[in-house]
Amino acid sequence: MIARLTGRFPQGPLVELGPGDDAAVVRAPDGRYAATMDLLVEGRHFRTDWSSAYDVGRKAAAQNLADVVAMGARPTALLVGFGAPPSLEVAWAEALGDGLRDECALVGASIVGGDTVGAEAITVAVTALGDLGGRPPLTRTGARPGDVVAVRGRLGWAATGLAGLSGAVEVPERFVAAHRRPEPPYAAGEEARALGATALLDVSDGLVQDLGHLARGGGVGIALASALVPLDEGVALRDALTGGEDHAFAGTFPADRPLPPEWRVVGEVVEGAGVTVDGGRVERGGWDHFGR
Amino acid sequence: MIARLTGRFPQGPLVELGPGDDAAVVRAPDGRYAATMDLLVEGRHFRTDWSSAYDVGRKAAAQNLADVVAMGARPTALLVGFGAPPSLEVAWAEALGDGLRDECALVGASIVGGDTVGAEAITVAVTALGDLGGRPPLTRTGARPGDVVAVRGRLGWAATGLAGLSGAVEVPERFVAAHRRPEPPYAAGEEARALGATALLDVSDGLVQDLGHLARGGGVGIALASALVPLDEGVALRDALTGGEDHAFAGTFPADRPLPPEWRVVGEVVEGAGVTVDGGRVERGGWDHFGR
Repeated sequence: MIARLTGRFPQGPLVELGPGDDAAVVRAPDGRYAATMDLLVEGRHFRTDWSSAYDVGRKAAAQNLADVVAMGARPTALLVGFGAPPSLEVAWAEALGDGLRDECALVGASIVGGDTVGAEAITVAVTALGDLGGRPPLTRTGARPGDVVAVRGRLGWAATGLAGLSGAVEVPERFVAAHRRPEPPYAAGEEARALGATALLDVSDGLVQDLGHLARGGGVGIALASALVPLDEGVALRDALTGGEDHAFAGTFPADRPLPPEWRVVGEVVEGAGVTVDGGRVERGGWDHFGR
Repeated sequence: MIARLTGRFPQGPLVELGPGDDAAVVRAPDGRYAATMDLLVEGRHFRTDWSSAYDVGRKAAAQNLADVVAMGARPTALLVGFGAPPSLEVAWAEALGDGLRDECALVGASIVGGDTVGAEAITVAVTALGDLGGRPPLTRTGARPGDVVAVRGRLGWAATGLAGLSGAVEVPERFVAAHRRPEPPYAAGEEARALGATALLDVSDGLVQDLGHLARGGGVGIALASALVPLDEGVALRDALTGGEDHAFAGTFPADRPLPPEWRVVGEVVEGAGVTVDGGRVERGGWDHFGR
């Protein structure tokens, strides 16, 4: 099965040695690399009755590639650990591999290795690696009072889709599709760099929660204005502020720097601590006062 | 919990950015790096009634560090994905982290990042990264007819210990300890390089099976002599030939190169294909003809 899977993975120019040895060998032209890992478990991070194997692969790759991009790095390589019950059809694993491969193709990354084991629950562990191209990483610590806070990408789409899948409400199919297969705007890393970003991260757990990392990291506060938060038609403010899994990118930028329209200013960095919306402290689960 | 865990992980000089951002940043002085991953699942790769959390950590790190060493690389960094039921005590996770950390300390590697998620079964995904120091990787493809095959490390200890834990037989405690916590001779990578190794791997699935990779990789045959296989007191030949998880290192070397006593010659590389023992083809599970 491993041979059938790895045969589907083309190897890019930065791969010196791909799958099949004790370890892969990947070039790091910059003399260092970005490295991140996520673990996805069936029933907790995906459901096989809600998502196809191909979609699980796309999503597992996307959330890790987004983390590399959020460092201002270019994704180069993925390692994939795959656990599954013996009863799982090989076709499922192949479709997962195809999804991983196709998402990697968007950014030029290669699947260079991994592991296949037995497990009760389908388990996908993805490590993503990337090259910084000689530039400093875009960390979570650089936000300064006076910076603007801006977002690039979808907010609340996946959360809306999840509510639809749960049967709680009827939602348009595009949100369900967004839950199954996020579309991180991978160009955002290079764009943020060009725009002088002082800090950057990808929104995986929800805008307010993730901006909390930038606030803590910079020793600053972040003041959001709900009227500025981009609300696509059919998305509630609550979901735009708290919904995760869309893998938008959020960063802080010098206030005197004009931003292109893809980057939506949603607030500013202030002295203090924590994240406020319209001046109010945000409690997890306490969203009823956002009536919009 | 993540903060409690990462607070226990010292960061070495090659770590530019450790845990806490979207991704870690690790230096690759050589301009490339070795990368490998293993996935371990409770009930399949370890049992919590047989192994302590600390031992699971040691073992999970060891088997990945051994893969990096088997490339002739120096391990520099680990990423660890950890899945566990909410009911698991934090102390268990901390002991796991301590085990990972202490094994890394043997080779100077740092735990630079990872992920913590909910899961029914305790799941540990480990990615290990290493630096090649400007030298070519020691792959599985270099064995040439006329080379000798030599092994450095324990054979059959973990398999003997596993038989003891299973209650099948009474075995000395040292074998049970070896099953719980392998002790790969990490110096073997540098040694093999200095000795002119043409190919190297770590023995994770069993000597005969893993040497099959060197045979296929080199397009050669490997002829083992059972009388040469090192048998520590209390280890059966069958276990020495087929037992995995000790993470000994097996390599091929030019025949004119004297090897120090730590490296035990067990056979030679020949024209042909596959692995033979005393001239006989070895079938999986068909070991009764080795009566020694």
